[in-house]
Amino acid sequence: MKMNLKIGLAQINSKVGDLKLNFEKISKFIQLGKKHKVDLLCFPELALTGYPPEDLLLNKQFLKSIDIAVKNLEKITKEMNVVIGYPRQINKKLFNIAGVFIKGKLYKEYKKFQLPNYGVFDEDRYFEKGVESTTFTIKNRKIGITICEDIWVDTKIINKRINDDNIDLLINLSASPYSIDKQKKRLTILKAISKKNSIEICYCNLIGGQDELVFDGNSMILNKDGAVVASAKEFDEDLLIKNINFQKNKSRIHLPNKGNDYYLKEVLSALSLGLKDYVYKNNFAKVLLGISGGIDSALVASIAVNALGKKNVLGLALQTKYNSDKSLELAKKLSKNLGFKLKVLNIQNIFENTNQLLTNGIYGKTTWDITEENLQSRIRSNILMATSNKLGYLLLSTGNKSEISIGYSTLYGDSAGGIAILKDIPKTLVYKLSKFYNRLYPTNLIPKEIILREPSAELKENQRDLDSLPPYRILDKILELYIEEEKSLKEISSTLKINKSIVSEIIRKVNNNEFKRRQSPPGIKITTKAFGRDRRYPMTNGFIDA
Amino acid sequence: MKMNLKIGLAQINSKVGDLKLNFEKISKFIQLGKKHKVDLLCFPELALTGYPPEDLLLNKQFLKSIDIAVKNLEKITKEMNVVIGYPRQINKKLFNIAGVFIKGKLYKEYKKFQLPNYGVFDEDRYFEKGVESTTFTIKNRKIGITICEDIWVDTKIINKRINDDNIDLLINLSASPYSIDKQKKRLTILKAISKKNSIEICYCNLIGGQDELVFDGNSMILNKDGAVVASAKEFDEDLLIKNINFQKNKSRIHLPNKGNDYYLKEVLSALSLGLKDYVYKNNFAKVLLGISGGIDSALVASIAVNALGKKNVLGLALQTKYNSDKSLELAKKLSKNLGFKLKVLNIQNIFENTNQLLTNGIYGKTTWDITEENLQSRIRSNILMATSNKLGYLLLSTGNKSEISIGYSTLYGDSAGGIAILKDIPKTLVYKLSKFYNRLYPTNLIPKEIILREPSAELKENQRDLDSLPPYRILDKILELYIEEEKSLKEISSTLKINKSIVSEIIRKVNNNEFKRRQSPPGIKITTKAFGRDRRYPMTNGFIDA
Repeated sequence: MKMNLKIGLAQINSKVGDLKLNFEKISKFIQLGKKHKVDLLCFPELALTGYPPEDLLLNKQFLKSIDIAVKNLEKITKEMNVVIGYPRQINKKLFNIAGVFIKGKLYKEYKKFQLPNYGVFDEDRYFEKGVESTTFTIKNRKIGITICEDIWVDTKIINKRINDDNIDLLINLSASPYSIDKQKKRLTILKAISKKNSIEICYCNLIGGQDELVFDGNSMILNKDGAVVASAKEFDEDLLIKNINFQKNKSRIHLPNKGNDYYLKEVLSALSLGLKDYVYKNNFAKVLLGISGGIDSALVASIAVNALGKKNVLGLALQTKYNSDKSLELAKKLSKNLGFKLKVLNIQNIFENTNQLLTNGIYGKTTWDITEENLQSRIRSNILMATSNKLGYLLLSTGNKSEISIGYSTLYGDSAGGIAILKDIPKTLVYKLSKFYNRLYPTNLIPKEIILREPSAELKENQRDLDSLPPYRILDKILELYIEEEKSLKEISSTLKINKSIVSEIIRKVNNNEFKRRQSPPGIKITTKAFGRDRRYPMTNGFIDA
Repeated sequence: MKMNLKIGLAQINSKVGDLKLNFEKISKFIQLGKKHKVDLLCFPELALTGYPPEDLLLNKQFLKSIDIAVKNLEKITKEMNVVIGYPRQINKKLFNIAGVFIKGKLYKEYKKFQLPNYGVFDEDRYFEKGVESTTFTIKNRKIGITICEDIWVDTKIINKRINDDNIDLLINLSASPYSIDKQKKRLTILKAISKKNSIEICYCNLIGGQDELVFDGNSMILNKDGAVVASAKEFDEDLLIKNINFQKNKSRIHLPNKGNDYYLKEVLSALSLGLKDYVYKNNFAKVLLGISGGIDSALVASIAVNALGKKNVLGLALQTKYNSDKSLELAKKLSKNLGFKLKVLNIQNIFENTNQLLTNGIYGKTTWDITEENLQSRIRSNILMATSNKLGYLLLSTGNKSEISIGYSTLYGDSAGGIAILKDIPKTLVYKLSKFYNRLYPTNLIPKEIILREPSAELKENQRDLDSLPPYRILDKILELYIEEEKSLKEISSTLKINKSIVSEIIRKVNNNEFKRRQSPPGIKITTKAFGRDRRYPMTNGFIDA
């Protein structure tokens, strides 16, 4: 007879590399689990080290420290049954492991057998593949283990394992990064495996930000009919506890009808958590950014105020004569609405003096071009970085994915900063997020005029983004098809019914600006293809499908 | 009876992604081979696409264009026997292939079976492993094929293949990047395989620079006793032609006694080729750089003058009151010796005005700290980047590996530029290279005083590198053991007999400055572990062996 099992899923926020901190957190959750008398407590993939540890995994001292920590896990799991993820070297081979601790003994170590090596993942760089399945029994329940990718690749293999092992409960430890609609994809796979095999599934995912990635949590338990019977928080730590009984768990929980706009809330949460963790995990407390009166800096400031608190955000409005009075007025209004401090400086003199030095000393009088525009942007970044250095605030870059894709930004200028939270957010999504933000926080409004005004870099007289770019609604569609869906010039042109020469020009710009992206700060991945580890194009590149 | 075989090794410089350019080059070398009546002409690994094409390999349009190019290879190989490397999709799987073209027909396609996925390599991200060996026969000679890594991993497998296939000539197509002593390692492996199996070997390597990598060529032919009987140029294109006869090739060529200093010449060649190819392949013609009167900018200028010609190098000396008269005098002397143009500007006013704006407008009067030093460096980079924008010259960054390791540089300041050719050159090697340069080019001398003077950033009164750093000869040893040899704090401290606290402080700095390196320009790999694709540390990292 299948017995009642009290399951705990410890959805924790680990910090990459910080074994001490993570161990303490794990210990705390184990105490909590003990208090709640759970029969089995699960932690996410690589919970001990954080994910992804990257080349730390090549560091012998790091591996030694992990060995010690795993030994110590035995000490803190006494009277408990715990499954937890960590990397460990066994006979000089490194594996991605789920350790099963039964009453203080390391009973078994399951080794991940599907190693993702695409997109942001590099697991073949570090790990050997496991070959065997692993089961264990608690209260007469036979339990199987998988780690993240194991269930994503070839369900035939996993279904065969489940069948061969004759298990009725499957655990999946994950470090599955957020992207839009990711949770739907997880549910589809988990439901299919559950229904096909009539088994219960416990899915335990990491949460937290790590450089370019955000893990959203969303851990859950499915009954043998593939229905979700319990689910953990999204974008927050949680301990999900649920009594499961193979026969009785019929009643699915009511998953809220999230609506078409719900992904906007998720994206805001992802950016907020990604920012917060980047700031705190790197030992900063406060941030600063340039406030232009435009929508990108408005959205970044809004998210920063939400994530870190208004007292921890400083805005600088750095004016030249090309910035309209309207822009300054809106910058001030934004700072007032959101409650962060704004300092206003005029940099026109410095711009003119530098320009004069350049024309007198180097290249003589010339006609105005991109040089003078970039120079303003770089003087701003000097002021911002000096403030960052003097006050110890982290500088936020405000560029969005549309600009960064086609190089509509100044290297060492507006691209400068510790993190660029909009790096994976196309301009059209910046608008949607801003409007949605205003619905969520009606007392913290982004001024409506900022959302409605025409975008401009304000780096010369009467400049408009439209003068050098197609409308963002068209640009963003082209970029999505080219970058995320990897479509060809021909396909994009015919799908969107847009002249080939326009598409071709955009593709050319994307490719030609790889050198700028290679020197840009990390962003936070929210689409299926972000710049950074996710997309590795050569800078020197003679191929352009254009 | 083994017959005489006239072998050609086409050691070409491909440009990544530029199928048209590479095809034309391949065609030209095939014409040359035909003229010389070679029986078999070999090209390097991925000669058609260049190496590494990175995520271009995920681009469907790129793969389609390769298919067309491979078809066209049949047209240009009529009357010839050619083995050439390219990536190609077969039944929706992508392979790293050596195509055997016999008299205008694609006769066989060998698929690489050892895919490197460590260091700078990501081949598991793109390729499936081949499973079978491939042989073909020309003039009664049975020939086997391997691609680069195939012979590096497990010589047992390769020896078994050679034995099973009963070949007497092995071809290896390579895209093997340069690092110090790499050619020795190649020779050791090739000799061992040749002697063990009594076979001749034709090793055909790529040459040229691609972002962070330089391929050095050094193609060669070994007789069945493991002796080199012909070798191609290093760091230059070449068509190596040699009549080989299994029985008769006893006389090894006289490999010059290269001496202990020879690696310095190699490194200078690597930097020069890496720079030249980065500049030209990215469609620049000229470069500029800041000239401080110190040794780093002196060496970069020297290499640039050699690689691109003195007319294509512009130096800027950007003075504050912290730059000594001596520095300016030496900068001028350097420019005179090397023959490049130097412009001198004083930026003290801009520095003071910006500082005043910051103190008045933002943080009030404070004591001098890193802020003011960074500000000078960033004003310099503004001037340099404006000049780059206006004149279309590529900016060279002059930072060396020692500085970049520990973050002794200003982000968006002296770290700015399109390429940092000394990024993998420790400061002690900068000195050796400078002295060696003066021996090679006695009429282009780097002024002796630049080599002898004490290093200083000259960002405040009487500053010396020694004030904030241990002596470079010690620092560089610590860095080499930590970064290249991946030794622990304990090992480094005991190997070098240096106090743990000093080593610990250095390791901490290396780890804490990953965020700066992530935003720095590419360098040129010359050691076993360079920053960039070669070393992938997290920025957010709680583990420090210190």
